[in-house]
Amino acid sequence: MTSTVTYQPREDELRYTFGGHPAVAEIKPGSLLVTSTEDCFGGAVRTVDDLPSKVCQAFNPVTGPFHVLGAEPGDTLVLHFAAITPARDWGMSATFPHFGALTGTHTTAMLHPPLEERVWCYSIDAAAEIVTFHARRSDHAIVMPLEPMLGTVGVAPAGGEARSTIVPDAHGGNLDTPEIRSGATVYLGVNVPGALFAIGDGHARQGQGEVCGVAVETAMNVTVAVDLIKGVATPWPRIETDHRIISIGAARPLEDAYRISQHDLVTWTAQLTGLELLDAYQVASQAGRSAPGNVCDPLYTMHAAVNKTILAGVHPYDGVHQRLRRIAGAPREQRGKDHGN
Amino acid sequence: MTSTVTYQPREDELRYTFGGHPAVAEIKPGSLLVTSTEDCFGGAVRTVDDLPSKVCQAFNPVTGPFHVLGAEPGDTLVLHFAAITPARDWGMSATFPHFGALTGTHTTAMLHPPLEERVWCYSIDAAAEIVTFHARRSDHAIVMPLEPMLGTVGVAPAGGEARSTIVPDAHGGNLDTPEIRSGATVYLGVNVPGALFAIGDGHARQGQGEVCGVAVETAMNVTVAVDLIKGVATPWPRIETDHRIISIGAARPLEDAYRISQHDLVTWTAQLTGLELLDAYQVASQAGRSAPGNVCDPLYTMHAAVNKTILAGVHPYDGVHQRLRRIAGAPREQRGKDHGN
Amino acid sequence: MTSTVTYQPREDELRYTFGGHPAVAEIKPGSLLVTSTEDCFGGAVRTVDDLPSKVCQAFNPVTGPFHVLGAEPGDTLVLHFAAITPARDWGMSATFPHFGALTGTHTTAMLHPPLEERVWCYSIDAAAEIVTFHARRSDHAIVMPLEPMLGTVGVAPAGGEARSTIVPDAHGGNLDTPEIRSGATVYLGVNVPGALFAIGDGHARQGQGEVCGVAVETAMNVTVAVDLIKGVATPWPRIETDHRIISIGAARPLEDAYRISQHDLVTWTAQLTGLELLDAYQVASQAGRSAPGNVCDPLYTMHAAVNKTILAGVHPYDGVHQRLRRIAGAPREQRGKDHGN
Amino acid sequence: MTSTVTYQPREDELRYTFGGHPAVAEIKPGSLLVTSTEDCFGGAVRTVDDLPSKVCQAFNPVTGPFHVLGAEPGDTLVLHFAAITPARDWGMSATFPHFGALTGTHTTAMLHPPLEERVWCYSIDAAAEIVTFHARRSDHAIVMPLEPMLGTVGVAPAGGEARSTIVPDAHGGNLDTPEIRSGATVYLGVNVPGALFAIGDGHARQGQGEVCGVAVETAMNVTVAVDLIKGVATPWPRIETDHRIISIGAARPLEDAYRISQHDLVTWTAQLTGLELLDAYQVASQAGRSAPGNVCDPLYTMHAAVNKTILAGVHPYDGVHQRLRRIAGAPREQRGKDHGN
Repeated sequence: MTSTVTYQPREDELRYTFGGHPAVAEIKPGSLLVTSTEDCFGGAVRTVDDLPSKVCQAFNPVTGPFHVLGAEPGDTLVLHFAAITPARDWGMSATFPHFGALTGTHTTAMLHPPLEERVWCYSIDAAAEIVTFHARRSDHAIVMPLEPMLGTVGVAPAGGEARSTIVPDAHGGNLDTPEIRSGATVYLGVNVPGALFAIGDGHARQGQGEVCGVAVETAMNVTVAVDLIKGVATPWPRIETDHRIISIGAARPLEDAYRISQHDLVTWTAQLTGLELLDAYQVASQAGRSAPGNVCDPLYTMHAAVNKTILAGVHPYDGVHQRLRRIAGAPREQRGKDHGN
Repeated sequence: MTSTVTYQPREDELRYTFGGHPAVAEIKPGSLLVTSTEDCFGGAVRTVDDLPSKVCQAFNPVTGPFHVLGAEPGDTLVLHFAAITPARDWGMSATFPHFGALTGTHTTAMLHPPLEERVWCYSIDAAAEIVTFHARRSDHAIVMPLEPMLGTVGVAPAGGEARSTIVPDAHGGNLDTPEIRSGATVYLGVNVPGALFAIGDGHARQGQGEVCGVAVETAMNVTVAVDLIKGVATPWPRIETDHRIISIGAARPLEDAYRISQHDLVTWTAQLTGLELLDAYQVASQAGRSAPGNVCDPLYTMHAAVNKTILAGVHPYDGVHQRLRRIAGAPREQRGKDHGN
Repeated sequence: MTSTVTYQPREDELRYTFGGHPAVAEIKPGSLLVTSTEDCFGGAVRTVDDLPSKVCQAFNPVTGPFHVLGAEPGDTLVLHFAAITPARDWGMSATFPHFGALTGTHTTAMLHPPLEERVWCYSIDAAAEIVTFHARRSDHAIVMPLEPMLGTVGVAPAGGEARSTIVPDAHGGNLDTPEIRSGATVYLGVNVPGALFAIGDGHARQGQGEVCGVAVETAMNVTVAVDLIKGVATPWPRIETDHRIISIGAARPLEDAYRISQHDLVTWTAQLTGLELLDAYQVASQAGRSAPGNVCDPLYTMHAAVNKTILAGVHPYDGVHQRLRRIAGAPREQRGKDHGN
Repeated sequence: MTSTVTYQPREDELRYTFGGHPAVAEIKPGSLLVTSTEDCFGGAVRTVDDLPSKVCQAFNPVTGPFHVLGAEPGDTLVLHFAAITPARDWGMSATFPHFGALTGTHTTAMLHPPLEERVWCYSIDAAAEIVTFHARRSDHAIVMPLEPMLGTVGVAPAGGEARSTIVPDAHGGNLDTPEIRSGATVYLGVNVPGALFAIGDGHARQGQGEVCGVAVETAMNVTVAVDLIKGVATPWPRIETDHRIISIGAARPLEDAYRISQHDLVTWTAQLTGLELLDAYQVASQAGRSAPGNVCDPLYTMHAAVNKTILAGVHPYDGVHQRLRRIAGAPREQRGKDHGN
């Protein structure tokens, strides 16, 4: 029988770094964790008049960290997301001064004044599986598919670092990729005893690249099956779904995020299939899929993916994805409704 | 009745620049062009022993340029691809010294010797709609969907420039995006009288980003319906399909290709829907799709797309896509088989 | 005796591309060319009320191209600048919409409106060797050293291309580096018969990186000694002065311009000294100097330099720099006056 | 009378992050600190046979952190380097696998095997003020000026982060700029009570950009005058010398490091002189100097500088540089000897 850990964070237990905090709970490999996450505004933006720069002190709180029993540097943490469901019937987005891909920022520094700070409130209809955008300067209402995901999933980084939850990197963190949805299994290399993973930043949906810097931010209820692969290192975050294997890179410039993700997909493919390295490079070149996660965070993210039908018969990490799906109660994989990938 | 221009290039008529050449034929707006394209090796790589650096003098020949009657700077050229079908039952790929995303190049200059130059021969089965990869260092054979596309579609550039067909930019050129497939309509801003468009670089299929620098290269038979929108400028290449509108950016670093494509999608969306600019930015942020075309050419490309179902009722360029589909004989839109997007 | 070619361009002879034009004159290797260049505005911006976007049709005219007798692809063109002297006692600068490093541009595309377009008029006092900046929003007058240079020096590109004079690349072009001053020798690889070199874009002075996109633009009188090294290729523009050897790279992102320049300096150093490649890499790492030329043009430029005192006894290109200095009448090398580093 | 704190770290007191550690000593503003730093290898690389990847567990130890009494977030820490002198008569450099600008790295991920790991031992002659390079694959010995500097100077970062000492960012850290030499005053924004600054990574000399990733690494004896500007924030690291004011940016891609540094120089110039913003932009454009510090660390650095003679009469931070020079015993500013530019 699967054991379950239930944890609901108090507001003062929310964390803003990966690393630098003791665990809030211990989890045995093979267990389920039932928890919830606040939105990236800590819930402080509730109407279109709540400007984030005015009402927020800090951004992107995570729930955790959780100590996984037996996890040690060199292992791989496995997080299978059984359910990610909105905890509210509304979500918020915004433009934020000097943040986003189409504005000067503190690093792409420019002499322009910031774009207008503006907030949007989306209605979320979980039953109908839709979110509705309401324009601020006209009467347009635009319906989009509900596609819940977690923007931030990570472990404590290596080398004694503590990193802001705004940052994605080899330890995971603010990956901001729509690929972390219900039914997906995330693999993360362990850097410290107990792994100390944390999650947050739920999005009711998100465009690829999160171009304005903010998705449809909402609190989430999350059920995640936790497991551990001993003695197998994972250099960069990876994701497995029923249909695909996915490698994620985080870097600037964006081509380096692309390079990292493709390099990991090529070497992973070579290892899974027995293909020689340049032969695997060729497979990624013709069958590989790619998309940006975010092009706004301190490091940008891209994923590289290949369909399992192309790599017939591979069983990454010894089939743990299939095992956890069963533990998790056989969730149907939720695929991007207007994506197909 | 639709008039048809048929043109088959002789080898000495193939061109290696956009700009700098007189037209090979004139086309009236509203006509069909039936033609063919050589592969990026000029057909010189026919076995795995034909190393491109040895057997090729130049790369990426195009068919054309074609003079479109009445086209003037400030107009928009419309190319609806009615059919793109492999002219051979084989396609070639390769690693090429100092070319590709996971190798030092002449611009990302490094002290490493080049990766091994290696050639792969794919079998193409048009009836079964598959291509088969044959590994060079093992016995693997991997079947992938046939998804024919043109990598290179462009017009003569502005300012008296002549640009290598290896280069993508605002004039189109070597965009290397799988989105230019049968059923797609491409929009290009006209820079010179007659537009002087040319096409080439057929791929039996291509991964997103074309990571090793070379797709499954093959000659193609192409039928394209040609039209002209007078007095409407198009700043960067755009594509319309039955389901999506797509903007393409070309630049380095890759985030600038992303920015250009998203900026164009945001402003185009605002214009099509009447949404105010930041409201349109918000729609792109939540509903926008993005992927790299190439991350290996002198400029990288990315596309930004949004589903027409999201932007209900828009008719870009006054519905020319639908009109040309009818002229072209109602081709079925061929969608990426393992993509869905 | 040194032969001299004198050429003063008429306005309708100014050119806006490298490549695509016949030569205006022939020059024998070993000759002097006495000529002049217009400023980047074609002389149309004469007061602070002449906004470039209103009064200019095209930018960055060059004088030429000149056919160098006997020059063939694979040779190296040598241009020793004996004198670069302002032809006017005023120079103009400006902010230009969507151009410059601290503003959104057409490639670093942003949703901001452009920065204000503003023009500045500098007084040039050639006798006192100063230029004076006059602020537009206050009474400040700031005196700076006069340091005349040419921003644009290039040959016709390879592959049948014609490139805008705004662009720097392997063929030279709009390098926008202060290193091309009186006393400097520029080396450029020849791509077409006759080399077809052209020059322009005089700056009374320029900051490193030309951050706003426009230097102190002025017409120049130029005397250049022309020579040819047969059978020796030069991959990227190089410069030699009495004190330094310098390699220039042009690319985006800026680190690739850095990489190209350092890679060329390392390999050139290895060839000049007999040092093994990684030993030469080490010398560049500890003794190499670097600075940006422009961080605003379609490709950015950086140079890599090393002092000849470090590489004792080297004679690049068989001592042609020293020979041309004598032909040119032993000009004193003009070094950056406030360039104390 | 100036009070002096003397601190010599034991090996187990060396630190590898900024943030995450308690102070080793307290310092009153206006005091001198006399201390020493280990080299980036922790002293473990002593001969050319000591490969860093074999003999080192961690890299780039710093001495500190030091708590500055009264320092609070929003203040500016002032560090005037009175003396930086080599503590040994030898220094080490190396190529390190997947590190440096001309090699594939873990972020600019490539399929090449790493370049050869090789170590060089330099002799340092402090009296003669020279360092001597000894080639490994030939008999060359090359003499270069001794120009001691500290690569790593920083404070605890904001937001509860702890950052590896390999990383430069707004908190300073591994800036790797030759501008931090004897006679220079460094300004850093304070993020946590006490500032918690630390220093390390002495270089006997370094090329601009540190192209192979490793300078002439050596232990240093350091005397630094410490002061505090209350209530004045400093957004990015700044340096003042007798002759120049300098802003430093840290980012990838390199143009963003350039943008940050230039943006800070422009706004700082505007504030110091009373020039309006675009007028100050113009001054930086014509008089600004720029160079890379490192193009190899997790973030690259560039500086932007302007001569004080250009900005006549400015007294940054109320003249603290001049005051600390007096406290420090009037050190002569040591300028780059071959830095003629």
